[in-house]
Amino acid sequence: MKVRLRNPDRQMEVAGDRLVRDLLADLSIDPDTVLVIKERTLLTRDRWLEQDDEVEIRPVISGGSGRPRPVARCKRCREPAVVEVRRHNASFCEPCFVHHVHEQIRRSIKEHGMFDPTDRVLVCVSGGKDSLGLWDALLELGYRTTGMYLGLGIGEYSDRSWEVVRRFAEERGVELIHTDLRDAYGYDIPTAGRKGSRSTCSVCGLSKRYVFNRVALDHGFDVVATGHNLDDEAATLLGNTLRWQTEYMARQFPVLSQREGMVKKVKPLYRLSERETAAYAFLRGIDYVVEECPLVAGNTQLKYKDAMNHLEAGSPGTKASFYLGFVDRGAASFRHRDDQVDLTPCERCGQPTTGRFCAFCRAVAQVTGVRLIDLSVAGRPPERQVASEVSDEVMPVEIYGR
Amino acid sequence: MKVRLRNPDRQMEVAGDRLVRDLLADLSIDPDTVLVIKERTLLTRDRWLEQDDEVEIRPVISGGSGRPRPVARCKRCREPAVVEVRRHNASFCEPCFVHHVHEQIRRSIKEHGMFDPTDRVLVCVSGGKDSLGLWDALLELGYRTTGMYLGLGIGEYSDRSWEVVRRFAEERGVELIHTDLRDAYGYDIPTAGRKGSRSTCSVCGLSKRYVFNRVALDHGFDVVATGHNLDDEAATLLGNTLRWQTEYMARQFPVLSQREGMVKKVKPLYRLSERETAAYAFLRGIDYVVEECPLVAGNTQLKYKDAMNHLEAGSPGTKASFYLGFVDRGAASFRHRDDQVDLTPCERCGQPTTGRFCAFCRAVAQVTGVRLIDLSVAGRPPERQVASEVSDEVMPVEIYGR
Repeated sequence: MKVRLRNPDRQMEVAGDRLVRDLLADLSIDPDTVLVIKERTLLTRDRWLEQDDEVEIRPVISGGSGRPRPVARCKRCREPAVVEVRRHNASFCEPCFVHHVHEQIRRSIKEHGMFDPTDRVLVCVSGGKDSLGLWDALLELGYRTTGMYLGLGIGEYSDRSWEVVRRFAEERGVELIHTDLRDAYGYDIPTAGRKGSRSTCSVCGLSKRYVFNRVALDHGFDVVATGHNLDDEAATLLGNTLRWQTEYMARQFPVLSQREGMVKKVKPLYRLSERETAAYAFLRGIDYVVEECPLVAGNTQLKYKDAMNHLEAGSPGTKASFYLGFVDRGAASFRHRDDQVDLTPCERCGQPTTGRFCAFCRAVAQVTGVRLIDLSVAGRPPERQVASEVSDEVMPVEIYGR
Repeated sequence: MKVRLRNPDRQMEVAGDRLVRDLLADLSIDPDTVLVIKERTLLTRDRWLEQDDEVEIRPVISGGSGRPRPVARCKRCREPAVVEVRRHNASFCEPCFVHHVHEQIRRSIKEHGMFDPTDRVLVCVSGGKDSLGLWDALLELGYRTTGMYLGLGIGEYSDRSWEVVRRFAEERGVELIHTDLRDAYGYDIPTAGRKGSRSTCSVCGLSKRYVFNRVALDHGFDVVATGHNLDDEAATLLGNTLRWQTEYMARQFPVLSQREGMVKKVKPLYRLSERETAAYAFLRGIDYVVEECPLVAGNTQLKYKDAMNHLEAGSPGTKASFYLGFVDRGAASFRHRDDQVDLTPCERCGQPTTGRFCAFCRAVAQVTGVRLIDLSVAGRPPERQVASEVSDEVMPVEIYGR
């Protein structure tokens, strides 16, 4: 049979009929890290593949290894299943799986009081499975959402991502905000990664958090929603825990409350694994960017994902019990530490920070080579960058679909 | 060359001269997990091996993979090195390495006020590298120690372990206490693993903690010292953290203070990796039991050690920063929880517990099939098993070398 593998995209010929499970085992692929697709249909591990078949093995995460377990019928309706969720020891047919994902999101929103139907939610979208899947689900669940895409300037990867996001919004006739790091702040991520003292992934994360918050403030959104999933959160938590960075642990929660200059932030996908969000995006017919960011190689978070996948392969459920257990029991031990941090407005942009200038302004100055004092952001001269004016002036953005 | 591998013990012929580092790489062995020994000498990774050589590759931990880095001269005296400690990016010659180990132990004892030269220290010894290395070092450092060996009844493995411990004490003319689970409580570990509701490793750990504490109380020791090393503590902490078992985390510290019915417990090796304790035992000429316990297969702690070794191979120092960071910064977040636990004496044996009967007495009843009320421990009838009498009567033990 013809097998298409991704990241990098390649094709191979595998001789002999066999079960999906055996094909994956023969290729040393952890079944929890991929979707197996034939003719735009998802296959469970107990499906038989024949010589003439063409299948795609689409990664949802990086690395790992493990043994498959057979599953077959939908847990809710007993129809043939298309997706298995190993840590729940359950399989679902397409409609029941979509229902399962919606229920997990509904539960997250409710348990943590993330937002209600009257709130205006700014959904940060990158073009990947998680953020587009989140936006799709929130639209399905009837929330008031606007998408927000930030151009990072990562060559063709960014071009394709924007194209995918733009089309998603257009097809659904929903509002989408667009801005570009280079237009607004005079740098792109590849340059920032080379020039600044932060790693590429670090300066990228910092830029996104800053711009999304700024746009939400400028346009009166009640909450910013991001597509972080269970795997993301578990890997980040593992990294923070291995170093006992208790101040980061205090803030790693599915909801961060609003405070002066900082919009409320929520992660409605935190109960769903990367494989579940990938299957959801696929089953909902979302055309998302399968390729990984070309700058991600060597990202330390991948190392932690890899370690978590190893543990998960040995004991399914480890990831969920680690992160959800932290949310339920662990986080309380660190929360008081966060309260103690005293924040004052950044002297340049007004965003709350612990020092004179916020981390974002310092990074922009470093990367663009402009002195902090001479730096103008969003068209505002330095002397006007004070906290009280943050919501008076807005960063230049394009708004589609209004 | 002839290469001897252990666990299981086997010999292989490797063709062609090469560096120790390349031999390990060819065998896919993580250099941090083994000692390489030629003619009773340790070899660093940059040593050349020739066709006629016979080397032993002796495991210090289980599993793992990684790439070696070359090291060569002692950090302290610039003589040729015999051991490298990768996380310190340092190598040592034999006397300087022994000095390094003693310094780490001295520092642990001092930083946590573990004990002073007037205290009577009961050292729990199993016959392995860690506990015998600890006892050796404490003797070298001039502390007042007595060894304590508990017979677990694990066939030849236990017989050989006792023989090794007995000889160690005899050669040094030091006091050694011996007792046996079957003689004192009517069961052995293989039986307990099969019959009880706990896993073999769990009931073994419970039995050891109980008996060592009891003997320390009976014989007026100030403190119980165990050979837990950095790898043990990091793996245990990872397991507890992945489940956010905050009550266990609160108690996982290098020192547990004395309280009613519980002798102070200390872990002076917590700053030393398993590879360092193995190298120390070897360089000090200690004949220790290299074999792993035959019942350990499938032990969940090995899974966590494996995960830690993976992370360590990618970022040397991860283990140390995880556990030592916990000791410095993390533990405080959980400590208050431990204070809240209210303990009362076990109605049968007097040991502090949260319920009516302590976990040990419940396990003994379950494993021996005797009702808790009828159970006699250490020759005491049930009605006399009250807290105030714990130190009046003693468990039968044999004392050697007094």
